[in-house]
Amino acid sequence: MDTQEILMQFKNGEMSLEEAEAYLKRQPFEDMGYAKLDSHRKLRSGFAEVIFCSGKADAHLKEIFRHLYEEEGEVLGTRASLSQYELIKKEFPQVQYDEISHILKIEKEGKKRIGRIAVCTAGTADIPVAEEAAQTAEYFGSNVDRIYDVGVSGIHRLMSRLDVIQSANCVVAVAGMEGALASVIGGLVSNPVLAVPTSVGYGANMHGLSALLTMINSCANGIAVLNIDNGYGAGYMATQINRLAVRQGDGV
Amino acid sequence: MDTQEILMQFKNGEMSLEEAEAYLKRQPFEDMGYAKLDSHRKLRSGFAEVIFCSGKADAHLKEIFRHLYEEEGEVLGTRASLSQYELIKKEFPQVQYDEISHILKIEKEGKKRIGRIAVCTAGTADIPVAEEAAQTAEYFGSNVDRIYDVGVSGIHRLMSRLDVIQSANCVVAVAGMEGALASVIGGLVSNPVLAVPTSVGYGANMHGLSALLTMINSCANGIAVLNIDNGYGAGYMATQINRLAVRQGDGV
Amino acid sequence: MDTQEILMQFKNGEMSLEEAEAYLKRQPFEDMGYAKLDSHRKLRSGFAEVIFCSGKADAHLKEIFRHLYEEEGEVLGTRASLSQYELIKKEFPQVQYDEISHILKIEKEGKKRIGRIAVCTAGTADIPVAEEAAQTAEYFGSNVDRIYDVGVSGIHRLMSRLDVIQSANCVVAVAGMEGALASVIGGLVSNPVLAVPTSVGYGANMHGLSALLTMINSCANGIAVLNIDNGYGAGYMATQINRLAVRQGDGV
Amino acid sequence: MDTQEILMQFKNGEMSLEEAEAYLKRQPFEDMGYAKLDSHRKLRSGFAEVIFCSGKADAHLKEIFRHLYEEEGEVLGTRASLSQYELIKKEFPQVQYDEISHILKIEKEGKKRIGRIAVCTAGTADIPVAEEAAQTAEYFGSNVDRIYDVGVSGIHRLMSRLDVIQSANCVVAVAGMEGALASVIGGLVSNPVLAVPTSVGYGANMHGLSALLTMINSCANGIAVLNIDNGYGAGYMATQINRLAVRQGDGV
Amino acid sequence: MDTQEILMQFKNGEMSLEEAEAYLKRQPFEDMGYAKLDSHRKLRSGFAEVIFCSGKADAHLKEIFRHLYEEEGEVLGTRASLSQYELIKKEFPQVQYDEISHILKIEKEGKKRIGRIAVCTAGTADIPVAEEAAQTAEYFGSNVDRIYDVGVSGIHRLMSRLDVIQSANCVVAVAGMEGALASVIGGLVSNPVLAVPTSVGYGANMHGLSALLTMINSCANGIAVLNIDNGYGAGYMATQINRLAVRQGDGV
Amino acid sequence: MDTQEILMQFKNGEMSLEEAEAYLKRQPFEDMGYAKLDSHRKLRSGFAEVIFCSGKADAHLKEIFRHLYEEEGEVLGTRASLSQYELIKKEFPQVQYDEISHILKIEKEGKKRIGRIAVCTAGTADIPVAEEAAQTAEYFGSNVDRIYDVGVSGIHRLMSRLDVIQSANCVVAVAGMEGALASVIGGLVSNPVLAVPTSVGYGANMHGLSALLTMINSCANGIAVLNIDNGYGAGYMATQINRLAVRQGDGV
Amino acid sequence: MDTQEILMQFKNGEMSLEEAEAYLKRQPFEDMGYAKLDSHRKLRSGFAEVIFCSGKADAHLKEIFRHLYEEEGEVLGTRASLSQYELIKKEFPQVQYDEISHILKIEKEGKKRIGRIAVCTAGTADIPVAEEAAQTAEYFGSNVDRIYDVGVSGIHRLMSRLDVIQSANCVVAVAGMEGALASVIGGLVSNPVLAVPTSVGYGANMHGLSALLTMINSCANGIAVLNIDNGYGAGYMATQINRLAVRQGDGV
Amino acid sequence: MDTQEILMQFKNGEMSLEEAEAYLKRQPFEDMGYAKLDSHRKLRSGFAEVIFCSGKADAHLKEIFRHLYEEEGEVLGTRASLSQYELIKKEFPQVQYDEISHILKIEKEGKKRIGRIAVCTAGTADIPVAEEAAQTAEYFGSNVDRIYDVGVSGIHRLMSRLDVIQSANCVVAVAGMEGALASVIGGLVSNPVLAVPTSVGYGANMHGLSALLTMINSCANGIAVLNIDNGYGAGYMATQINRLAVRQGDGV
Repeated sequence: MDTQEILMQFKNGEMSLEEAEAYLKRQPFEDMGYAKLDSHRKLRSGFAEVIFCSGKADAHLKEIFRHLYEEEGEVLGTRASLSQYELIKKEFPQVQYDEISHILKIEKEGKKRIGRIAVCTAGTADIPVAEEAAQTAEYFGSNVDRIYDVGVSGIHRLMSRLDVIQSANCVVAVAGMEGALASVIGGLVSNPVLAVPTSVGYGANMHGLSALLTMINSCANGIAVLNIDNGYGAGYMATQINRLAVRQGDGV
Repeated sequence: MDTQEILMQFKNGEMSLEEAEAYLKRQPFEDMGYAKLDSHRKLRSGFAEVIFCSGKADAHLKEIFRHLYEEEGEVLGTRASLSQYELIKKEFPQVQYDEISHILKIEKEGKKRIGRIAVCTAGTADIPVAEEAAQTAEYFGSNVDRIYDVGVSGIHRLMSRLDVIQSANCVVAVAGMEGALASVIGGLVSNPVLAVPTSVGYGANMHGLSALLTMINSCANGIAVLNIDNGYGAGYMATQINRLAVRQGDGV
Repeated sequence: MDTQEILMQFKNGEMSLEEAEAYLKRQPFEDMGYAKLDSHRKLRSGFAEVIFCSGKADAHLKEIFRHLYEEEGEVLGTRASLSQYELIKKEFPQVQYDEISHILKIEKEGKKRIGRIAVCTAGTADIPVAEEAAQTAEYFGSNVDRIYDVGVSGIHRLMSRLDVIQSANCVVAVAGMEGALASVIGGLVSNPVLAVPTSVGYGANMHGLSALLTMINSCANGIAVLNIDNGYGAGYMATQINRLAVRQGDGV
Repeated sequence: MDTQEILMQFKNGEMSLEEAEAYLKRQPFEDMGYAKLDSHRKLRSGFAEVIFCSGKADAHLKEIFRHLYEEEGEVLGTRASLSQYELIKKEFPQVQYDEISHILKIEKEGKKRIGRIAVCTAGTADIPVAEEAAQTAEYFGSNVDRIYDVGVSGIHRLMSRLDVIQSANCVVAVAGMEGALASVIGGLVSNPVLAVPTSVGYGANMHGLSALLTMINSCANGIAVLNIDNGYGAGYMATQINRLAVRQGDGV
Repeated sequence: MDTQEILMQFKNGEMSLEEAEAYLKRQPFEDMGYAKLDSHRKLRSGFAEVIFCSGKADAHLKEIFRHLYEEEGEVLGTRASLSQYELIKKEFPQVQYDEISHILKIEKEGKKRIGRIAVCTAGTADIPVAEEAAQTAEYFGSNVDRIYDVGVSGIHRLMSRLDVIQSANCVVAVAGMEGALASVIGGLVSNPVLAVPTSVGYGANMHGLSALLTMINSCANGIAVLNIDNGYGAGYMATQINRLAVRQGDGV
Repeated sequence: MDTQEILMQFKNGEMSLEEAEAYLKRQPFEDMGYAKLDSHRKLRSGFAEVIFCSGKADAHLKEIFRHLYEEEGEVLGTRASLSQYELIKKEFPQVQYDEISHILKIEKEGKKRIGRIAVCTAGTADIPVAEEAAQTAEYFGSNVDRIYDVGVSGIHRLMSRLDVIQSANCVVAVAGMEGALASVIGGLVSNPVLAVPTSVGYGANMHGLSALLTMINSCANGIAVLNIDNGYGAGYMATQINRLAVRQGDGV
Repeated sequence: MDTQEILMQFKNGEMSLEEAEAYLKRQPFEDMGYAKLDSHRKLRSGFAEVIFCSGKADAHLKEIFRHLYEEEGEVLGTRASLSQYELIKKEFPQVQYDEISHILKIEKEGKKRIGRIAVCTAGTADIPVAEEAAQTAEYFGSNVDRIYDVGVSGIHRLMSRLDVIQSANCVVAVAGMEGALASVIGGLVSNPVLAVPTSVGYGANMHGLSALLTMINSCANGIAVLNIDNGYGAGYMATQINRLAVRQGDGV
Repeated sequence: MDTQEILMQFKNGEMSLEEAEAYLKRQPFEDMGYAKLDSHRKLRSGFAEVIFCSGKADAHLKEIFRHLYEEEGEVLGTRASLSQYELIKKEFPQVQYDEISHILKIEKEGKKRIGRIAVCTAGTADIPVAEEAAQTAEYFGSNVDRIYDVGVSGIHRLMSRLDVIQSANCVVAVAGMEGALASVIGGLVSNPVLAVPTSVGYGANMHGLSALLTMINSCANGIAVLNIDNGYGAGYMATQINRLAVRQGDGV
């Protein structure tokens, strides 16, 4: 119904004052046809839905996993526990679980990867978060170079891998403690850096807030920051950037 | 001049071997005593150095401005005061100053712009930060669409501009107070969103920390966060992403 | 005019179909370039748009004020400075300004008020915030009882006004320092309490955060909290509750 | 004894100086007859006492539960553990326990519910808090519509349920992570919104403080905030508002 | 007049029954419209009301000052500005102002002081807060020993005055920066220590929060803490303790 | 034995010069290797040393307990676990343990108590902290009145016990959540109030910091604050004040 | 390749534009020969690498331990658990484990120690952190004096050991709760003090942040601060200072 | 008097019980002769007292300045304003003032400097704090190398000065914003690094707290942290270390 119809029905007594008012109050939103947005977006962006497993009830996890598998033929789950892996394995023996990244997945074979993302960590304790980023990016179709344990307290380690880092379309810098890695990398590359603070450290690291503040206040250009330990988010956004970079190119 | 230009001029015989070598081997920063201008930056990143004017002594500002102007033929200064504008205007009458964004610049004419970035604000009070982002991106060669005052308390305003936002290579979402704009946009677009919290608000906004935390904890994918009021950083990084998107394409 | 009025005028023949349609279909916001006035707000919520004056440029303030005045025949501005008052007075000599609440307004005469809201303060220094709440509520059509300087350090002052507080449809409790007033009132009344922390105090009050935390952690039921110094928000929401209470009643 | 009697007894030596002083110092409070307040309030408000089970010793819990049951014929307990349920079940086999909301209750049959409250959540992980709110409101006699998993990262989900949300007398918006749901709803409805931040999330969510700050700083009108995870408090206050709305009406 | 005085005057016939009753039954606060002076306070606590001058409007300050002067024949105002002093001096030429403590007062002559309080500071910058404490205590009738600039970085200064500190009925320890003075004194005396953090310092002192935390976490026994810069509160409470100590004794 | 007793026994010939000197010159602490017991403490302060049991190694706890018992004939331990109680009971079968307050003690019989302290709590969950305060005060010789569960959400409960609270030499106010109890009591009594925030609550109570801030910012006079959950410290300091009050009086 | 070669190869077509650009962009870093830095530093400083055991996977820990043992003939591991000790003991039966400091090590016999460091603690609960500092310093070749349980609440304990503290080349002050020990020592010695806050305490100690802030704000000169519980870092840096002090001296 | 004398005088009635008790309670401290500590320390450490000018009253500043000048023949004042300089210049025309560091001083001519300290800054805005450190160190007799504007966003600038930094006995690393400079330097040198966070930056730098946290959490060894903007403290402590390093050497 359009506005004229509503007004006339009301005048003619076919619609009560309350009904007419209710219709008219909703109008500015109904005109926009939201129902189509979702599928449209998915078709265009190519990012299927992912399961954040942590805290999911067993029954829910199984159902969502099965649903997505039927939909897509592959599923990515993050922050899965070992027992959740065992739960899913009963129904999907082919499911893979990585104890480092806590990623649980069934992945289609033969998927093509494009472009190049570099995932760097300051220390070895940051690797679980980095792997979440790297495996997410790979799942979504990016090539990933891993450059781990190149923190700023021994900067020659970082320098020795500079060529790889500088040639990536996007760099993910993963660091806990003081989180200085992102600034140093930011000063050395020309492409965007996604900084992921981790909760690695102790004392005044405040579970990662210290590293987050370091990264947000970075004096280098071309750095933006994700939530503490949010490797998944970094892998996702790095893939967005990587896709933009190779969209009309040759896939590197 | 960036590295490609030097190489091509040399190849084309417009530059001698000595000149090319001199350019390239030039000490990677020029020591002005109190400051070390990073003259290799453009070679390394494709972005010339920019002046953060706030708090610079008059003598230093003039000297750095002149130096960069001689180097590049154009200069971008951020967070400049009116009196700094008047100071520079004495020597460079062609300098332009924008009281909203506090940007002070001399820009080469006829620069070509590529791609497309969308800069959105939640309210009118966020516009100064948004303009810093937009004008920075334009200076570095990006086309910019401005979509202001589309905060989530009247979400139809945002929806009515959705087509423009969705077609940008990168969206900059600028918001103070509760900062929810970034999450809503993040759920509506497929390209990366750079979220800039502003210090707009009062009370428990804690000078922008509240908006920063909102954005860092966003439940939407494809969002990364810059420092409070850091419009410049967002314009810079959005340009990095925009350049990647059009590098081998047709400039949109 | 709100939706009901438009519908009724149309039904009664005081408004043509075209006029009614124009009102209702009007673009849900008016684009003033720098701002998008939410002209559908009153249709949607029954509350006309209000101007948050603080920080508005003179030119913008005048234009928005004039626009809203033409639309509604009355305007409410909060956090206005004395010089903003003088600016508006040049064009609208009938404008009123209250130096305590910093409210700037033109109000239609003869507006009917309904129901009853109680606005309480702990101390005299909380009165500016309380007046912002009280005058907002009155502008939007609520009767308001003011019960000021009844903080918990002399609780007999509060007790002596208990009957007035208990008979309100909604109580606004405004307090800085330790903010205990809201809890004590919450334990004494049966209707909802809106707690407004203020930045009154010094030292560890952290500009009102301490009072906010007190109120959020209240052990009493029926209390919800607004931002520090947000008298306007409390007056608005108290009116929402008050309207619900008298909608089908006798207006108290 | 009134003041005159005290003075005369003292003058006549029937009362010592200390006794007279003690009597007179207490006067401003004893004149008010507090002892009647409590039962009066309960009769009027219709909210019986509720048990916050978490941390209660077994012996205490049993005794309080029995006492309230004898008093009211029904009991509501929040934040109960499974073992507390088993404890109570031994004595009251009819007791009901909901593992999602952790509500433990015996409820009278055939209670009439009035009005309508909408309880919304951003994600599925916020449901336990939302259920605490919803079941509390139902226990106290409100009809409740549940609209779950409508967070702002996919705003069409929210839009598709807008009619239900807009027709509620009060909306409870439950969200963790960035907590933007409350602002978006606040911009879409005309009745009050009670915002409940949850501790859902990780990293810089600081156990819910981030969502709390988002909600407190909301740019939308008509929003007030409860403590993190305080579903009970929201259900209680929503019922207060709902009762006001239908008090003299037809119960919707 | 306090309660004892009224009772004795009545018993001795210096006051009629009606007068005594009037004094005692006087409405426990006097409603000045914007403020409710707590006239029962002295009856209740033995301390007359004091004016917190900071932020008071001129008209209000004058009226309250006059009112209290008429009531008590003396007045104590804290945190007064020089211009407030000049305002009051016009009407009360006998008023005294101390630029260090910002105390403004008219004090009855010949008041007897009892007991002994020690007020210590860590540095010279803490003296304004210490003087507020000392002069408040003196106004309320305590003898005060001032021991200033005895901070822990040169602990022999403190030791050389130990006899005075140990013989006080209550010690007020005033310190900014790291605030360690309170702990050291707490380990050396047997009577209570009231610790007053000050906002003295810079950087990570966070306007006194650091000193407050130091004092709250003190490893010494017999220490309790007041708000940052709250000299008045310390002088008041030290007097309460001092009065208890000499109530039935010989006044030291 | 305290200093007075030693002096008098020496004067009366019950102790030789050598013995008296030995007592008094005894090294002011006894070095147990890992700990230095402060054996001069009782001489200095009149309070024997107390054991903070939490976290002590079994061997250390036993040794310190035995040592203090030999010295004083009685011992007070706070924050003891059940297993620490069982450890000590093997050697000292007469030891007493209270599961509520976690106090472990052997107390001399027939100790005289003086004066009167009131210990109040806002809720029942604050009782463990209150009992630590109360039992500490009793151990050190104070009479204690317990007034529990009188929080401000039902203020008549507090009012009904006002006479007991007003007649105490010192009031200990124990409260978690919003901690408003201290302010209300502070406005009702004339003697000092020691406020003890507790970690009771959830969400934005930040483990007691919220209650601490409430109490530090109290608008009432005569309140000072101890660390979160520090019942022992409050019992100690209340005893200091109580002793001062009755030192030269009749013991009430 | 140097710049000339790159330019000529490009001109001659032996190198593509992309290759030439890539080479030139890396130049400013490759010129510096970082690869040699690491071993050079180790030779000069004499600090071998140390294992932070906490959180290391068993396989990693064993491998690293073995590697370092083969390299150096001795190994120092910090924050080792009992089970990690048992793991290593299987392969290296000579490994030593200290349950207090959680240090796991194989140390060469007959190592000479130089200079003198004093490690002080406020309480006995700070000893684990102090021992980590002391044993680290000893491992790296410093003599260490332990002065434990000398907190400021009984300052005579500290004074009695002053000679030892004053004669050290560097003092490590380890304290939790209010952390005042560092300031007092700082005022008593002429050599540098390294302050280590510990997480010892409860309530508002905020897991050591309170002590950290105290130490950072110290009013004494010659104090610098390490992370909470970072005994290892203090032992390391104290050794750096100690080595400087005795480098050309006689080893004290 | 020793203990025996006190006891005997008391027994003989030459001393009252109170006097004897007072003497004996003070004993543990008076035995230590603190009065000599101060001058002893000064003789040994060679650090004269320094004036923290900020906030000093004019009369006090002049008096202290004169006093120290008479004592030492030279004076160092930090954080002096221009007007304080003008004040002192009237009496001491030879006084020197540096507008960058805000240091006000009269320094003896021909003072010999020893050793070598490196003072580094991340940016030019950090220079005022660095100069406070450098000039303090020079005043106290250290040679200082200044290496400014070598922040991590262009790390080649730092590398080009590495030899100077590595040869210093102590490095002072001064940085605001994200403060990563300290970590990078810490990884490159073998001597101690004193890290000074500055308040340079904006937004989430929280006036320097962010840089402080970065430095406290540094993953590099050999770093300790001073208060925000505390250049003086760093210059002082660097001199302590420098003196230790050259004490028995040849002064480098």
